[in-house]
Amino acid sequence: MTHNKGNICFILGGTRSGKSGFALRKSSEFSGKKAYIATAQALDDEMKERIDKHKRERSGDWTTFEEPANISGLIKYVHNKYDVVIIDCLTLWLSNLMLADSNIENESDRFISSISDVHCSLFIVSNEVGLGIVPDNAVARKFRDTAGYVNQRVAETADEVYLVTAGIPVKIK
Amino acid sequence: MTHNKGNICFILGGTRSGKSGFALRKSSEFSGKKAYIATAQALDDEMKERIDKHKRERSGDWTTFEEPANISGLIKYVHNKYDVVIIDCLTLWLSNLMLADSNIENESDRFISSISDVHCSLFIVSNEVGLGIVPDNAVARKFRDTAGYVNQRVAETADEVYLVTAGIPVKIK
Amino acid sequence: MTHNKGNICFILGGTRSGKSGFALRKSSEFSGKKAYIATAQALDDEMKERIDKHKRERSGDWTTFEEPANISGLIKYVHNKYDVVIIDCLTLWLSNLMLADSNIENESDRFISSISDVHCSLFIVSNEVGLGIVPDNAVARKFRDTAGYVNQRVAETADEVYLVTAGIPVKIK
Repeated sequence: MTHNKGNICFILGGTRSGKSGFALRKSSEFSGKKAYIATAQALDDEMKERIDKHKRERSGDWTTFEEPANISGLIKYVHNKYDVVIIDCLTLWLSNLMLADSNIENESDRFISSISDVHCSLFIVSNEVGLGIVPDNAVARKFRDTAGYVNQRVAETADEVYLVTAGIPVKIK
Repeated sequence: MTHNKGNICFILGGTRSGKSGFALRKSSEFSGKKAYIATAQALDDEMKERIDKHKRERSGDWTTFEEPANISGLIKYVHNKYDVVIIDCLTLWLSNLMLADSNIENESDRFISSISDVHCSLFIVSNEVGLGIVPDNAVARKFRDTAGYVNQRVAETADEVYLVTAGIPVKIK
Repeated sequence: MTHNKGNICFILGGTRSGKSGFALRKSSEFSGKKAYIATAQALDDEMKERIDKHKRERSGDWTTFEEPANISGLIKYVHNKYDVVIIDCLTLWLSNLMLADSNIENESDRFISSISDVHCSLFIVSNEVGLGIVPDNAVARKFRDTAGYVNQRVAETADEVYLVTAGIPVKIK
């Protein structure tokens, strides 16, 4: 049995830029079993509503995994059981790690390692957060730096990178 | 008499990215009567100065309409009386609607409907606001989501979409 | 002796987007004496760490000039003594000028004038900061406007402009 190396498509964009919608449209080009890894946590009503909205937008084809922190372990589990996997999104995952005071560098290393030999078509959704002015508080600055750094590493590993603006994807790699 | 369907050009960019300047340059390719719909309100000196600066940048060819809220009604009025129409800008319009506690969803629907069958060359200027970190306050988050959502809908309706950075337009649709 | 007009490459991007790394990679295509103009000031530990990190990323080929404010004067000094010059970055320079209560418009004029006839390969790194929501405080808004305005002027003067996202450069001019 030969293992085909999977394909990684990295989808970047701003808030409500249509990143998730594009990930769904793009992934629908592939057939097979589909897993959706949601990193969002319904900690308040605003977040709960957003999560429910995303769920309604997905068809019944998708198995949803809600995992706020250990997505590296989950990828190792799902990548050869599903043909198409979406991770939505990396920035919320990083935010969860920071809130839990995890070692971000170690977790980022683990994540990059976990996606380096996936056998599925993997779609990774992430926010670009570094295009506003420098935030007032140090935690936000640290988060912004971390997100930018992780986005760079994922983009380097990815086979394709898209930047989505107002619902319009632009392929940049 | 045949009605030619008009053309919609959607121009997105950050603050001081040269969006309005590009809209003026791009629209100057067209001849005929020209209307400029300004949604900005001179509520303070900072805003007044910005509005005046924009006015000075326009030549005398333009008839200016200052309309902070009901741009949908105004478009229906101007679109077959003028050949070229610029709306500058959508994000200020949305901001005005939020301040006035209007029903944003209804107003967005009305707006999309009003631009769907224009007979003029319509240039719509808007800000991309979702590429910074998550704002602290809920109103700003709601605004960001709304602006992103409306930008997606306008981009979908538009014939052409440009993203302007540092004065340089990139056609993304 | 003939003076060849130099080449200006303007590199825009968000925080931790890989702007500086791209400037280093891109400039390594050129041979000769290399100068690095760093505008950052090590006012606190966070900034000191960032500056040190950037220094470690550069090879010993580079002569580093730390100049927070008078980069226009420095360019006139280095542009015909070095073959390759990087300015990293414009937004910190503008921030330094604002903190020092300098006349930004005069300084911007001086800067544009100083780069207009360089004889080296000049790489200018800058942040795009206008793609988040409107900041609460007036100083941040003024800074955002100023940065956007200066970026437009530099982009207009530059021979090439790149936008870097997640480490991936996209040539927009």
